[in-house]
Amino acid sequence: MPAWVDGLAADSLALGNRGLAYGDGVFETLAVKAGVPLLFERHLQRLQSSCERLAIDLDLALIRDEMTRFAAQAGDGVMKLIITRGDSQRGYAPLAGAMPRRILQMSPAASYPPGHAREGIQLFECQTRLAEQPLLAGIKHLNRLEQVMARAEWQDPGFAEGLMRDMSGRPIEGVYSNLFLVRDGKLLSADLARCGVAGVMRAELLDQARTLGIVVEIRDLSMSDLQQADELFVCNSVYGVWPVRGYAGLNWPVGPLTRTLQAVAHSLLGG
Amino acid sequence: MPAWVDGLAADSLALGNRGLAYGDGVFETLAVKAGVPLLFERHLQRLQSSCERLAIDLDLALIRDEMTRFAAQAGDGVMKLIITRGDSQRGYAPLAGAMPRRILQMSPAASYPPGHAREGIQLFECQTRLAEQPLLAGIKHLNRLEQVMARAEWQDPGFAEGLMRDMSGRPIEGVYSNLFLVRDGKLLSADLARCGVAGVMRAELLDQARTLGIVVEIRDLSMSDLQQADELFVCNSVYGVWPVRGYAGLNWPVGPLTRTLQAVAHSLLGG
Repeated sequence: MPAWVDGLAADSLALGNRGLAYGDGVFETLAVKAGVPLLFERHLQRLQSSCERLAIDLDLALIRDEMTRFAAQAGDGVMKLIITRGDSQRGYAPLAGAMPRRILQMSPAASYPPGHAREGIQLFECQTRLAEQPLLAGIKHLNRLEQVMARAEWQDPGFAEGLMRDMSGRPIEGVYSNLFLVRDGKLLSADLARCGVAGVMRAELLDQARTLGIVVEIRDLSMSDLQQADELFVCNSVYGVWPVRGYAGLNWPVGPLTRTLQAVAHSLLGG
Repeated sequence: MPAWVDGLAADSLALGNRGLAYGDGVFETLAVKAGVPLLFERHLQRLQSSCERLAIDLDLALIRDEMTRFAAQAGDGVMKLIITRGDSQRGYAPLAGAMPRRILQMSPAASYPPGHAREGIQLFECQTRLAEQPLLAGIKHLNRLEQVMARAEWQDPGFAEGLMRDMSGRPIEGVYSNLFLVRDGKLLSADLARCGVAGVMRAELLDQARTLGIVVEIRDLSMSDLQQADELFVCNSVYGVWPVRGYAGLNWPVGPLTRTLQAVAHSLLGG
Protein backbone atom coordinates (compact mmCIF):
# COMPACT_ATOMS: atom_id res chain seq x y z
CA MET A 1 0.00 0.00 0.00
CA PRO A 2 1.21 3.53 -0.73
CA ALA A 3 3.04 5.73 1.76
CA TRP A 4 4.44 9.25 1.70
CA VAL A 5 6.98 10.98 3.88
CA ASP A 6 6.85 14.79 3.71
CA GLY A 7 4.76 14.60 0.57
CA LEU A 8 6.95 12.19 -1.37
CA ALA A 9 6.50 8.46 -1.92
CA ALA A 10 8.66 6.61 0.59
CA ASP A 11 8.72 3.37 2.50
CA SER A 12 11.21 4.24 5.21
CA LEU A 13 12.13 6.89 7.72
CA ALA A 14 15.46 8.28 8.97
CA LEU A 15 16.71 6.43 12.06
CA GLY A 16 17.14 9.70 13.95
CA ASN A 17 13.42 10.37 13.91
CA ARG A 18 12.00 11.30 17.30
CA GLY A 19 8.88 9.29 16.62
CA LEU A 20 11.02 6.17 16.83
CA ALA A 21 13.30 7.36 19.61
CA TYR A 22 10.68 8.68 22.03
CA GLY A 23 7.23 8.28 20.51
CA ASP A 24 7.50 12.05 20.14
CA GLY A 25 4.53 12.69 17.90
CA VAL A 26 0.85 12.13 17.26
CA PHE A 27 -1.30 10.22 14.80
CA GLU A 28 -4.71 10.15 13.19
CA THR A 29 -6.51 7.23 11.58
CA LEU A 30 -9.15 8.12 9.00
CA ALA A 31 -11.55 6.06 6.92
CA VAL A 32 -11.27 6.95 3.23
CA LYS A 33 -14.17 6.31 0.86
CA ALA A 34 -13.98 6.85 -2.87
CA GLY A 35 -10.84 8.90 -2.34
CA VAL A 36 -12.37 11.18 0.30
CA PRO A 37 -11.19 11.20 3.94
CA LEU A 38 -14.18 10.99 6.29
CA LEU A 39 -14.68 13.29 9.30
CA PHE A 40 -11.73 15.12 7.84
CA GLU A 41 -12.15 18.53 9.49
CA ARG A 42 -12.77 16.94 12.88
CA HIS A 43 -9.56 14.90 12.52
CA LEU A 44 -7.64 18.03 11.52
CA GLN A 45 -9.03 19.89 14.52
CA ARG A 46 -7.88 17.18 16.89
CA LEU A 47 -4.50 17.00 15.17
CA GLN A 48 -4.06 20.73 15.60
CA SER A 49 -5.01 20.64 19.26
CA SER A 50 -2.73 17.61 19.90
CA CYS A 51 0.22 19.32 18.25
CA GLU A 52 -0.42 22.52 20.18
CA ARG A 53 -0.39 20.63 23.47
CA LEU A 54 2.89 18.92 22.57
CA ALA A 55 4.32 22.15 21.09
CA ILE A 56 4.86 20.51 17.70
CA ASP A 57 4.84 23.07 14.93
CA LEU A 58 2.12 22.06 12.47
CA ASP A 59 1.52 23.44 8.98
CA LEU A 60 -2.16 22.59 8.86
CA ALA A 61 -2.79 23.87 5.34
CA LEU A 62 0.07 21.76 3.99
CA ILE A 63 -1.18 18.67 5.84
CA ARG A 64 -4.74 19.18 4.63
CA ASP A 65 -3.55 19.45 1.06
CA GLU A 66 -1.26 16.41 1.31
CA MET A 67 -3.89 14.23 2.94
CA THR A 68 -6.46 15.23 0.35
CA ARG A 69 -4.16 14.31 -2.51
CA PHE A 70 -2.97 11.09 -0.88
CA ALA A 71 -6.53 9.94 -0.18
CA ALA A 72 -7.65 10.81 -3.70
CA GLN A 73 -5.06 8.43 -5.12
CA ALA A 74 -5.94 5.67 -2.68
CA GLY A 75 -9.62 5.11 -3.27
CA ASP A 76 -11.05 3.14 -0.34
CA GLY A 77 -9.14 2.25 2.78
CA VAL A 78 -7.79 3.51 6.05
CA MET A 79 -5.34 6.41 6.01
CA LYS A 80 -2.95 6.87 8.88
CA LEU A 81 -1.12 10.14 9.46
CA ILE A 82 1.83 10.35 11.81
CA ILE A 83 3.35 13.70 12.71
CA THR A 84 6.64 13.54 14.60
CA ARG A 85 8.72 16.34 16.04
CA GLY A 86 11.27 15.54 13.36
CA ASP A 87 14.81 14.23 13.49
CA SER A 88 17.32 14.98 16.17
CA GLN A 89 20.55 13.90 17.70
CA ARG A 90 20.69 11.88 20.89
CA GLY A 91 18.87 13.51 23.81
CA TYR A 92 15.38 14.62 24.72
CA ALA A 93 15.91 18.26 23.73
CA PRO A 94 14.89 18.76 20.08
CA LEU A 95 17.35 20.20 17.58
CA ALA A 96 16.73 23.88 17.03
CA GLY A 97 14.95 24.32 13.72
CA ALA A 98 14.14 20.62 13.26
CA MET A 99 11.13 20.28 10.96
CA PRO A 100 8.25 18.03 11.99
CA ARG A 101 7.84 15.06 9.66
CA ARG A 102 4.61 14.05 7.99
CA ILE A 103 4.06 10.35 7.35
CA LEU A 104 1.05 9.04 5.45
CA GLN A 105 0.26 5.35 5.13
CA MET A 106 -2.69 3.63 3.50
CA SER A 107 -4.14 0.30 4.62
CA PRO A 108 -6.89 -1.75 3.00
CA ALA A 109 -10.42 -0.91 4.08
CA ALA A 110 -11.17 -2.54 7.42
CA SER A 111 -13.36 -5.62 7.19
CA TYR A 112 -15.07 -6.60 10.43
CA PRO A 113 -17.58 -9.40 10.96
CA PRO A 114 -20.97 -7.78 10.20
CA GLY A 115 -22.31 -9.28 13.44
CA HIS A 116 -20.25 -6.76 15.45
CA ALA A 117 -22.45 -3.88 14.29
CA ARG A 118 -25.68 -5.89 14.06
CA GLU A 119 -25.75 -8.01 17.21
CA GLY A 120 -23.04 -6.34 19.26
CA ILE A 121 -19.78 -7.46 20.81
CA GLN A 122 -18.22 -8.85 23.97
CA LEU A 123 -15.62 -6.71 25.74
CA PHE A 124 -12.56 -8.38 27.19
CA GLU A 125 -11.73 -7.46 30.78
CA CYS A 126 -8.26 -5.92 30.34
CA GLN A 127 -6.03 -5.97 33.39
CA THR A 128 -3.72 -3.33 31.94
CA ARG A 129 -4.74 -0.05 33.55
CA LEU A 130 -4.37 3.42 32.04
CA ALA A 131 -1.89 5.60 33.91
CA GLU A 132 -3.12 9.05 34.84
CA GLN A 133 -1.20 11.82 33.09
CA PRO A 134 -3.22 15.01 32.59
CA LEU A 135 -0.52 16.52 30.34
CA LEU A 136 -1.05 13.78 27.76
CA ALA A 137 -4.68 12.83 28.42
CA GLY A 138 -6.92 13.04 25.38
CA ILE A 139 -4.04 13.29 22.89
CA LYS A 140 -3.67 10.56 20.26
CA HIS A 141 0.10 10.48 20.75
CA LEU A 142 2.62 7.81 19.80
CA ASN A 143 3.24 6.52 23.35
CA ARG A 144 0.91 3.56 23.10
CA LEU A 145 2.56 0.76 25.07
CA GLU A 146 -0.45 0.50 27.36
CA GLN A 147 -2.67 -0.28 24.39
CA VAL A 148 -0.14 -2.78 23.03
CA MET A 149 -0.06 -4.57 26.38
CA ALA A 150 -3.83 -4.48 26.79
CA ARG A 151 -4.38 -5.87 23.29
CA ALA A 152 -1.89 -8.68 23.99
CA GLU A 153 -4.04 -9.88 26.89
CA TRP A 154 -6.50 -11.76 24.70
CA GLN A 155 -6.35 -13.94 21.58
CA ASP A 156 -9.95 -15.19 21.61
CA PRO A 157 -11.68 -13.64 18.56
CA GLY A 158 -14.90 -13.80 20.58
CA PHE A 159 -13.79 -10.49 22.07
CA ALA A 160 -13.87 -7.70 19.49
CA GLU A 161 -12.57 -5.10 21.93
CA GLY A 162 -11.24 -4.79 25.47
CA LEU A 163 -12.25 -2.37 28.17
CA MET A 164 -9.52 -0.32 29.80
CA ARG A 165 -9.93 1.19 33.27
CA ASP A 166 -7.78 3.78 34.99
CA MET A 167 -5.62 3.18 38.05
CA SER A 168 -8.61 3.87 40.29
CA GLY A 169 -10.69 1.31 38.43
CA ARG A 170 -12.89 3.73 36.52
CA PRO A 171 -13.96 2.47 33.08
CA ILE A 172 -12.42 4.78 30.47
CA GLU A 173 -12.38 3.42 26.93
CA GLY A 174 -11.72 0.50 24.63
CA VAL A 175 -8.24 -0.32 23.39
CA TYR A 176 -9.22 1.04 19.94
CA SER A 177 -12.38 2.95 20.74
CA ASN A 178 -14.30 5.21 23.07
CA LEU A 179 -17.03 3.95 25.36
CA PHE A 180 -20.56 5.27 25.84
CA LEU A 181 -23.20 4.31 28.41
CA VAL A 182 -26.90 4.99 28.22
CA ARG A 183 -28.93 5.36 31.41
CA ASP A 184 -32.52 6.56 31.57
CA GLY A 185 -32.23 8.06 28.12
CA LYS A 186 -29.04 10.00 28.99
CA LEU A 187 -25.76 9.50 27.18
CA LEU A 188 -22.70 9.12 29.44
CA SER A 189 -19.03 9.18 28.46
CA ALA A 190 -15.92 9.12 30.60
CA ASP A 191 -14.14 12.34 31.46
CA LEU A 192 -10.77 12.15 29.68
CA ALA A 193 -8.92 14.73 31.79
CA ARG A 194 -6.50 12.17 33.31
CA CYS A 195 -6.15 9.51 30.63
CA GLY A 196 -7.73 8.17 27.47
CA VAL A 197 -7.89 9.33 23.87
CA ALA A 198 -10.47 11.94 22.88
CA GLY A 199 -11.76 10.14 19.82
CA VAL A 200 -13.03 11.94 16.77
CA MET A 201 -16.16 9.78 16.53
CA ARG A 202 -16.80 10.33 20.24
CA ALA A 203 -16.68 14.10 19.74
CA GLU A 204 -18.93 13.86 16.69
CA LEU A 205 -21.51 11.68 18.46
CA LEU A 206 -21.54 13.97 21.49
CA ASP A 207 -22.31 16.93 19.23
CA GLN A 208 -24.93 15.11 17.23
CA ALA A 209 -26.59 13.75 20.37
CA ARG A 210 -26.90 17.28 21.76
CA THR A 211 -28.40 18.40 18.46
CA LEU A 212 -30.94 15.58 18.76
CA GLY A 213 -31.90 16.84 22.22
CA ILE A 214 -30.27 13.93 24.05
CA VAL A 215 -28.88 14.82 27.48
CA VAL A 216 -25.13 14.23 27.54
CA GLU A 217 -22.97 13.79 30.64
CA ILE A 218 -19.18 13.75 30.58
CA ARG A 219 -17.96 12.64 33.98
CA ASP A 220 -16.01 10.04 35.90
CA LEU A 221 -17.73 6.69 35.45
CA SER A 222 -17.71 3.86 37.95
CA MET A 223 -18.22 0.13 37.64
CA SER A 224 -21.67 0.61 39.14
CA ASP A 225 -22.46 3.02 36.30
CA LEU A 226 -21.67 0.11 33.97
CA GLN A 227 -23.83 -2.26 35.98
CA GLN A 228 -26.74 0.14 35.98
CA ALA A 229 -26.45 1.12 32.32
CA ASP A 230 -29.39 0.33 30.04
CA GLU A 231 -27.15 0.24 26.96
CA LEU A 232 -23.44 0.25 26.23
CA PHE A 233 -21.57 0.88 23.01
CA VAL A 234 -18.10 1.60 21.68
CA CYS A 235 -17.23 3.80 18.73
CA ASN A 236 -14.39 4.89 16.54
CA SER A 237 -13.97 6.70 13.26
CA VAL A 238 -13.31 3.57 11.20
CA TYR A 239 -16.24 1.27 12.06
CA GLY A 240 -18.68 3.72 13.66
CA VAL A 241 -20.69 2.19 16.53
CA TRP A 242 -20.73 -1.35 17.92
CA PRO A 243 -23.24 -2.24 20.62
CA VAL A 244 -21.66 -3.92 23.65
CA ARG A 245 -23.54 -7.01 24.83
CA GLY A 246 -21.29 -8.36 27.53
CA TYR A 247 -18.38 -7.56 29.83
CA ALA A 248 -17.16 -9.32 32.97
CA GLY A 249 -20.40 -11.22 33.54
CA LEU A 250 -22.59 -8.17 32.86
CA ASN A 251 -24.97 -8.14 29.92
CA TRP A 252 -26.82 -5.46 28.04
CA PRO A 253 -29.41 -5.54 25.27
CA VAL A 254 -28.91 -3.51 22.11
CA GLY A 255 -30.95 -0.45 22.94
CA PRO A 256 -32.70 2.28 20.97
CA LEU A 257 -30.25 5.10 21.66
CA THR A 258 -27.39 2.87 20.52
CA ARG A 259 -29.25 2.20 17.28
CA THR A 260 -29.96 5.90 16.77
CA LEU A 261 -26.31 6.87 17.22
CA GLN A 262 -25.17 3.89 15.18
CA ALA A 263 -27.24 5.25 12.31
CA VAL A 264 -25.71 8.69 12.84
CA ALA A 265 -22.20 7.19 12.76
CA HIS A 266 -23.05 5.12 9.70
CA SER A 267 -24.13 8.22 7.88
CA LEU A 268 -21.04 10.17 9.02
CA LEU A 269 -18.93 7.38 7.55
CA GLY A 270 -20.55 7.77 4.17
CA GLY A 271 -23.52 5.45 4.66
CA MET B 1 27.91 8.49 12.46
CA PRO B 2 27.45 4.79 11.70
CA ALA B 3 24.19 2.91 12.19
CA TRP B 4 23.07 -0.66 11.68
CA VAL B 5 19.64 -2.19 11.35
CA ASP B 6 19.54 -5.94 11.99
CA GLY B 7 23.29 -6.12 11.65
CA LEU B 8 23.62 -4.26 8.36
CA ALA B 9 24.64 -0.67 7.73
CA ALA B 10 21.48 1.40 7.28
CA ASP B 11 20.23 4.91 7.86
CA SER B 12 16.51 4.31 7.73
CA LEU B 13 13.76 2.06 9.01
CA ALA B 14 10.58 0.63 7.46
CA LEU B 15 7.57 2.88 8.07
CA GLY B 16 5.57 -0.04 9.45
CA ASN B 17 7.90 -0.41 12.42
CA ARG B 18 6.09 -0.62 15.73
CA GLY B 19 8.75 1.50 17.39
CA LEU B 20 7.50 4.42 15.33
CA ALA B 21 3.81 3.54 15.48
CA TYR B 22 3.50 2.89 19.21
CA GLY B 23 6.88 3.29 20.88
CA ASP B 24 6.68 -0.50 21.09
CA GLY B 25 10.23 -1.27 22.12
CA VAL B 26 13.10 -0.53 24.47
CA PHE B 27 16.49 1.11 24.30
CA GLU B 28 19.89 1.18 25.94
CA THR B 29 22.50 3.93 25.84
CA LEU B 30 26.09 2.83 26.46
CA ALA B 31 29.35 4.68 26.68
CA VAL B 32 31.98 3.16 24.36
CA LYS B 33 35.66 3.62 25.04
CA ALA B 34 38.41 2.43 22.68
CA GLY B 35 35.84 0.25 20.95
CA VAL B 36 34.57 -1.42 24.12
CA PRO B 37 31.02 -0.91 25.45
CA LEU B 38 31.11 -0.05 29.15
CA LEU B 39 28.92 -1.73 31.78
CA PHE B 40 28.03 -4.04 28.93
CA GLU B 41 26.75 -7.07 30.83
CA ARG B 42 24.65 -4.88 33.12
CA HIS B 43 23.07 -3.21 30.07
CA LEU B 44 22.39 -6.60 28.51
CA GLN B 45 20.78 -7.81 31.74
CA ARG B 46 18.45 -4.83 31.84
CA LEU B 47 17.67 -5.23 28.15
CA GLN B 48 16.75 -8.85 28.71
CA SER B 49 14.54 -8.06 31.67
CA SER B 50 12.86 -5.16 29.80
CA CYS B 51 12.14 -7.36 26.79
CA GLU B 52 10.77 -10.12 29.01
CA ARG B 53 8.39 -7.71 30.68
CA LEU B 54 7.15 -6.44 27.31
CA ALA B 55 7.12 -9.97 25.85
CA ILE B 56 9.53 -9.00 23.09
CA ASP B 57 11.47 -11.99 21.84
CA LEU B 58 15.16 -11.21 22.25
CA ASP B 59 18.13 -13.09 20.81
CA LEU B 60 20.61 -11.98 23.45
CA ALA B 61 23.62 -13.79 21.98
CA LEU B 62 23.02 -12.18 18.60
CA ILE B 63 22.64 -8.73 20.17
CA ARG B 64 25.78 -9.15 22.26
CA ASP B 65 27.76 -10.11 19.19
CA GLU B 66 26.36 -7.29 17.07
CA MET B 67 26.96 -4.65 19.74
CA THR B 68 30.49 -5.87 20.30
CA ARG B 69 31.33 -5.65 16.60
CA PHE B 70 29.57 -2.30 16.16
CA ALA B 71 31.37 -0.75 19.12
CA ALA B 72 34.72 -2.12 17.96
CA GLN B 73 34.37 -0.23 14.68
CA ALA B 74 33.26 2.96 16.40
CA GLY B 75 36.10 3.70 18.78
CA ASP B 76 34.90 6.27 21.33
CA GLY B 77 31.37 7.53 21.64
CA VAL B 78 27.89 6.73 22.82
CA MET B 79 26.14 3.67 21.39
CA LYS B 80 22.37 3.52 21.38
CA LEU B 81 20.53 0.26 20.87
CA ILE B 82 16.82 0.22 20.07
CA ILE B 83 14.90 -3.05 20.02
CA THR B 84 11.38 -2.84 18.61
CA ARG B 85 8.72 -5.52 18.38
CA GLY B 86 9.24 -5.39 14.61
CA ASP B 87 7.01 -4.37 11.74
CA SER B 88 3.30 -4.85 11.57
CA GLN B 89 0.16 -3.79 9.83
CA ARG B 90 -2.23 -1.26 11.32
CA GLY B 91 -3.47 -2.23 14.79
CA TYR B 92 -2.04 -2.88 18.23
CA ALA B 93 -1.91 -6.66 17.85
CA PRO B 94 1.51 -7.71 16.47
CA LEU B 95 1.77 -9.72 13.28
CA ALA B 96 2.27 -13.40 14.04
CA GLY B 97 5.92 -14.24 13.47
CA ALA B 98 7.09 -10.63 13.21
CA MET B 99 10.79 -10.43 14.08
CA PRO B 100 12.01 -7.82 16.54
CA ARG B 101 14.29 -5.26 14.91
CA ARG B 102 17.71 -4.29 16.20
CA ILE B 103 18.85 -0.74 15.63
CA LEU B 104 22.33 0.48 16.56
CA GLN B 105 23.38 4.10 16.34
CA MET B 106 26.63 5.77 17.32
CA SER B 107 26.94 9.35 18.56
CA PRO B 108 30.08 11.33 19.35
CA ALA B 109 31.43 10.97 22.88
CA ALA B 110 29.44 13.19 25.22
CA SER B 111 31.26 16.36 26.25
CA TYR B 112 29.94 18.00 29.38
CA PRO B 113 31.34 21.04 31.16
CA PRO B 114 33.93 19.60 33.58
CA GLY B 115 32.41 21.71 36.35
CA HIS B 116 29.36 19.43 36.43
CA ALA B 117 31.39 16.59 37.90
CA ARG B 118 33.76 18.81 39.90
CA GLU B 119 31.54 21.42 41.53
CA GLY B 120 28.13 19.90 40.99
CA ILE B 121 24.97 21.02 39.22
CA GLN B 122 21.67 22.79 39.72
CA LEU B 123 18.48 20.79 39.16
CA PHE B 124 15.59 22.42 37.39
CA GLU B 125 12.21 22.05 39.11
CA CYS B 126 10.22 20.18 36.42
CA GLN B 127 6.47 20.58 36.57
CA THR B 128 5.92 17.53 34.34
CA ARG B 129 5.05 14.69 36.68
CA LEU B 130 5.69 11.00 36.06
CA ALA B 131 2.51 8.97 35.65
CA GLU B 132 2.29 5.85 37.77
CA GLN B 133 2.19 2.68 35.69
CA PRO B 134 3.59 -0.38 37.49
CA LEU B 135 3.50 -2.48 34.29
CA LEU B 136 6.05 -0.17 32.65
CA ALA B 137 7.91 1.17 35.69
CA GLY B 138 11.64 0.61 35.60
CA ILE B 139 11.74 -0.29 31.90
CA LYS B 140 13.75 1.91 29.53
CA HIS B 141 11.01 1.76 26.91
CA LEU B 142 10.38 4.01 23.93
CA ASN B 143 7.35 5.83 25.40
CA ARG B 144 9.25 8.90 26.53
CA LEU B 145 6.92 11.85 25.98
CA GLU B 146 7.08 12.75 29.68
CA GLN B 147 10.85 13.17 29.43
CA VAL B 148 10.49 15.18 26.22
CA MET B 149 8.00 17.51 27.90
CA ALA B 150 10.06 17.80 31.07
CA ARG B 151 13.22 18.62 29.11
CA ALA B 152 11.34 21.28 27.15
CA GLU B 153 10.56 23.14 30.37
CA TRP B 154 13.94 24.82 30.60
CA GLN B 155 16.44 26.42 28.21
CA ASP B 156 18.78 27.94 30.80
CA PRO B 157 22.10 26.03 30.53
CA GLY B 158 22.59 26.80 34.22
CA PHE B 159 20.46 23.72 34.85
CA ALA B 160 22.28 20.55 33.80
CA GLU B 161 19.37 18.31 34.74
CA GLY B 162 15.77 18.50 35.93
CA LEU B 163 14.11 16.66 38.80
CA MET B 164 10.97 14.71 38.02
CA ARG B 165 8.43 13.85 40.71
CA ASP B 166 5.54 11.43 40.54
CA MET B 167 1.85 12.35 40.65
CA SER B 168 1.96 12.30 44.46
CA GLY B 169 4.92 14.68 44.51
CA ARG B 170 7.57 12.14 45.44
CA PRO B 171 11.01 12.88 43.94
CA ILE B 172 11.87 10.04 41.55
CA GLU B 173 14.68 10.77 39.13
CA GLY B 174 16.28 13.20 36.71
CA VAL B 175 15.11 13.50 33.12
CA TYR B 176 18.28 11.66 32.01
CA SER B 177 19.51 10.18 35.26
CA ASN B 178 18.72 8.52 38.56
CA LEU B 179 18.79 10.36 41.84
CA PHE B 180 20.53 9.44 45.09
CA LEU B 181 20.29 11.02 48.53
CA VAL B 182 22.73 10.62 51.39
CA ARG B 183 21.51 10.96 54.96
CA ASP B 184 23.54 10.11 58.06
CA GLY B 185 25.90 8.01 55.95
CA LYS B 186 23.06 6.02 54.36
CA LEU B 187 22.43 5.92 50.63
CA LEU B 188 18.78 6.44 49.60
CA SER B 189 17.23 5.92 46.19
CA ALA B 190 13.61 6.09 45.08
CA ASP B 191 11.55 2.94 44.79
CA LEU B 192 10.83 2.54 41.06
CA ALA B 193 7.84 0.22 41.35
CA ARG B 194 5.34 2.78 40.00
CA CYS B 195 7.41 4.92 37.62
CA GLY B 196 10.95 5.82 36.68
CA VAL B 197 13.73 4.10 34.79
CA ALA B 198 15.90 1.56 36.61
CA GLY B 199 19.24 2.91 35.44
CA VAL B 200 22.25 0.71 34.87
CA MET B 201 24.58 3.06 36.77
CA ARG B 202 22.07 3.20 39.63
CA ALA B 203 22.07 -0.61 39.87
CA GLU B 204 25.85 -0.70 39.70
CA LEU B 205 26.30 1.95 42.39
CA LEU B 206 23.80 0.22 44.68
CA ASP B 207 25.76 -3.01 44.38
CA GLN B 208 29.12 -1.35 44.87
CA ALA B 209 27.85 0.66 47.84
CA ARG B 210 26.67 -2.55 49.53
CA THR B 211 30.06 -4.09 48.85
CA LEU B 212 31.68 -1.08 50.51
CA GLY B 213 29.51 -1.64 53.59
CA ILE B 214 27.32 1.40 52.97
CA VAL B 215 23.72 1.01 54.14
CA VAL B 216 21.37 1.29 51.19
CA GLU B 217 17.65 2.09 51.35
CA ILE B 218 15.30 1.82 48.38
CA ARG B 219 12.00 3.38 49.33
CA ASP B 220 9.50 6.10 48.56
CA LEU B 221 11.20 9.45 49.01
CA SER B 222 9.51 12.67 50.06
CA MET B 223 10.37 16.31 49.63
CA SER B 224 11.36 16.39 53.28
CA ASP B 225 13.85 13.60 52.58
CA LEU B 226 15.37 15.99 50.04
CA GLN B 227 15.39 18.84 52.55
CA GLN B 228 17.03 16.70 55.20
CA ALA B 229 19.59 15.10 52.89
CA ASP B 230 23.25 15.72 53.62
CA GLU B 231 24.24 15.09 50.01
CA LEU B 232 22.45 14.67 46.69
CA PHE B 233 23.71 13.34 43.39
CA VAL B 234 22.50 12.12 40.02
CA CYS B 235 24.04 9.39 37.91
CA ASN B 236 23.85 7.71 34.55
CA SER B 237 25.97 5.34 32.55
CA VAL B 238 27.38 8.01 30.23
CA TYR B 239 28.76 10.65 32.63
CA GLY B 240 28.86 8.74 35.91
CA VAL B 241 28.05 10.87 38.96
CA TRP B 242 27.31 14.59 39.23
CA PRO B 243 26.88 16.13 42.67
CA VAL B 244 23.68 18.17 43.04
CA ARG B 245 24.21 21.56 44.67
CA GLY B 246 20.81 23.15 44.36
CA TYR B 247 17.14 22.52 43.66
CA ALA B 248 14.10 24.68 44.35
CA GLY B 249 15.86 26.91 46.85
CA LEU B 250 17.50 24.01 48.67
CA ASN B 251 21.27 23.66 48.71
CA TRP B 252 23.67 20.86 49.44
CA PRO B 253 27.45 20.68 49.74
CA VAL B 254 29.41 18.11 47.76
CA GLY B 255 29.79 15.38 50.34
CA PRO B 256 32.20 12.52 50.96
CA LEU B 257 29.88 9.66 49.97
CA THR B 258 29.14 11.44 46.69
CA ARG B 259 32.88 11.69 46.02
CA THR B 260 33.41 8.03 46.90
CA LEU B 261 30.68 6.85 44.52
CA GLN B 262 31.78 9.33 41.88
CA ALA B 263 35.18 7.69 41.94
CA VAL B 264 33.53 4.26 41.67
CA ALA B 265 31.50 5.43 38.67
CA HIS B 266 34.56 7.01 37.11
CA SER B 267 36.39 3.76 37.34
CA LEU B 268 33.40 1.76 35.98
CA LEU B 269 33.45 4.09 32.99
CA GLY B 270 37.01 3.28 32.21
CA GLY B 271 38.70 5.83 34.45
